[in-house]
Amino acid sequence: MAVGAASRFPLLPVAGVRLGSAHAGIRKPGRRDVVILELAPGSRVAGSFTRNAFCAAPVTVAREYLGVAGGEPRFLLVNTGNANAGTGEQGLRAARESCAALAALAGVPASAVLPFSTGVIGEPLPVERLVAGLPEALATLDIAGWDLAAEGIMTTDTRPKGASRELMLDGVAVTLSGIAKGAGMIKPDMATMLCFVATDALIAQPLLDAALCRAVDVSFNAITVDGDTSTNDACMLVATGQAAHAQISDSTDPRLAVFESVLSDLFVELAQAIIRDAEGATKFVAVAVSGGRDRAECRRVAYAVAESPLVKTALFASDPNWGRILAATGRAGVDELDVAGVAVTLNGVRIASAGARDPGYTEEAGQRAMAAEEIEIAIALGRGDAAATVWTSDLSHDYVRINAEYRS
Amino acid sequence: MAVGAASRFPLLPVAGVRLGSAHAGIRKPGRRDVVILELAPGSRVAGSFTRNAFCAAPVTVAREYLGVAGGEPRFLLVNTGNANAGTGEQGLRAARESCAALAALAGVPASAVLPFSTGVIGEPLPVERLVAGLPEALATLDIAGWDLAAEGIMTTDTRPKGASRELMLDGVAVTLSGIAKGAGMIKPDMATMLCFVATDALIAQPLLDAALCRAVDVSFNAITVDGDTSTNDACMLVATGQAAHAQISDSTDPRLAVFESVLSDLFVELAQAIIRDAEGATKFVAVAVSGGRDRAECRRVAYAVAESPLVKTALFASDPNWGRILAATGRAGVDELDVAGVAVTLNGVRIASAGARDPGYTEEAGQRAMAAEEIEIAIALGRGDAAATVWTSDLSHDYVRINAEYRS
Repeated sequence: MAVGAASRFPLLPVAGVRLGSAHAGIRKPGRRDVVILELAPGSRVAGSFTRNAFCAAPVTVAREYLGVAGGEPRFLLVNTGNANAGTGEQGLRAARESCAALAALAGVPASAVLPFSTGVIGEPLPVERLVAGLPEALATLDIAGWDLAAEGIMTTDTRPKGASRELMLDGVAVTLSGIAKGAGMIKPDMATMLCFVATDALIAQPLLDAALCRAVDVSFNAITVDGDTSTNDACMLVATGQAAHAQISDSTDPRLAVFESVLSDLFVELAQAIIRDAEGATKFVAVAVSGGRDRAECRRVAYAVAESPLVKTALFASDPNWGRILAATGRAGVDELDVAGVAVTLNGVRIASAGARDPGYTEEAGQRAMAAEEIEIAIALGRGDAAATVWTSDLSHDYVRINAEYRS
Repeated sequence: MAVGAASRFPLLPVAGVRLGSAHAGIRKPGRRDVVILELAPGSRVAGSFTRNAFCAAPVTVAREYLGVAGGEPRFLLVNTGNANAGTGEQGLRAARESCAALAALAGVPASAVLPFSTGVIGEPLPVERLVAGLPEALATLDIAGWDLAAEGIMTTDTRPKGASRELMLDGVAVTLSGIAKGAGMIKPDMATMLCFVATDALIAQPLLDAALCRAVDVSFNAITVDGDTSTNDACMLVATGQAAHAQISDSTDPRLAVFESVLSDLFVELAQAIIRDAEGATKFVAVAVSGGRDRAECRRVAYAVAESPLVKTALFASDPNWGRILAATGRAGVDELDVAGVAVTLNGVRIASAGARDPGYTEEAGQRAMAAEEIEIAIALGRGDAAATVWTSDLSHDYVRINAEYRS
């Protein structure tokens, strides 16, 4: 069950990027479970990875190769069905062997292949089956391969997630397309489960890195399903430079602001697509906190509310049990919070003001607001000008069922 | 559904404490929902309260009166069915009116009555119904009233929680008895939902305060059901001083260590009783973290694992999905954690060592360990001598059902 509109396919092709996929039987037979992205020579790549100390072997190897290849990898190699995390030295060897196998077939150095894995943690990666799937993946490389790739990176996702944008730079059309996966173990910390975005824009490496960082901050770093930061989060931004505009190489270039604005917009759409397809989700919820002294405290409150099992079960029940929202706000660790200054609205219905139930609030109005599939919980702290929004889902029977059954 | 043995009733009477209760119809008719504890003159009381900024009106009033009465209150007045939290100025008036009504009936100053409430947040306290129940509560005051009081403070609890201890001081028998309630919105922060412990020991006020603080730290401050710190947490320790031993008034008195040890033991039993009866619980889980640089980082790891929805659903499924334990450990924010030093056992079965699956681990052994109703997850960080244990429950369908249906 997912909430709201699905992503619109087909995605727009991006000059310099071809995508292929294969059914390698990594975990179950007959599934499209290996995806490769081939990047044209000269492409620049920026990456953002999980900060979980137990980061997966492919994250370690991708970080290392991104350094070695000087930001110009030629292939991204993705498998589902196995996270290759919690696998120690053996896992690192498995990731390197997979990269070397694709590199040999394609005639590039092993370090030009960045590995990505997602699936069950702690099982050895079946390298032979993965490698056996590579010829099929190479044979299907296609500039129009985005849609099948979006399917190929799914695990507990119920639908593929992708988004495209077009903008004009110097009168030249520039395209961005991206795909993402993830439905559980979602509280990205500097990156998300897996996200691959490509553009044909020509942009200097430091600016590309900074653009990725800012886009991730307002998108993947502002969503949570269950507060569980994954071991495998990785978000890659590719710029092939094949659009015929002059390079963006100065941080004061006004085209950079235009590019970043469109990029952030695309990232937010992908991040929200993950929440719309969160495990067991029946609601899409924005927790918008304003009036904080700084952004950090607004985010603390937003995450405390977004991750409260009591708030999430009330959302599932469409029950305007707003006391749970106040309770989560109160335990978020905001220094010297004066609750008399706090106000809360649910989809515009004022439920609490001055730290207590709003005099004009009625249970009927609250119930109408909570019955919606898309809910905005707006919390005004009344002590400053900072704001932050976090997107999340509810906690349903299906979340428990999916995560109690996963692996079984 | 609760896990493991229920509390043993009847509790031991404590000289100087009588308990009464009433069916006041606070939220539903026919329920025992008002409880009073009458304390003999000269009793000393120590209190520990929630740190939630949205603390309930009775918490504010109890704190204030405890100061005014100089730590010698004469009554504790408890109601269930309504938390009197998120109720602003009106809530404070309601709490004071309730205390004043009992004080007038009993002929004591209003500030000698400390109020406690638990139940739905955000609804006005029905003061008239509460006050109408006071004569019944006073008429039933009985030194053997502990068992009915333990029932009277229940909300979503499925069974009453209480414990007693006896110890000898100067050859004199000293008794401790206590009752607690709580099953959800449980992550006490300096106190728990509601807990009342009394002893006839004669002990100086500063030592009583310190003893409460230390006992709470290793008991109620080491449990979590859902990470949601309540607005109403309060834990009260009464010492009536009616046992015929010489007063304990020096922190180096060897009897203090004996008393504190028995007190902490009783507190741990009550705190564990809350976890055994956690909403929807099918498992009783201890997360024991050792080898940390300090206790704080051990607690961070223990709470990250104990509150991870993915770990909790795996526990519910009896699935040894130990990768989720590593993932939660890795995101707990321990500085420079070297995962190669981390080892994990499940009820003594070694599942991970050197940050990866233990070579001797088998899925069968893991499944046997996870099938138990009582589980110890032991995590060795391998970087120091500090340790900490947190107790928690699993995340089941019933947790979602209970919290989606509550209020409806």
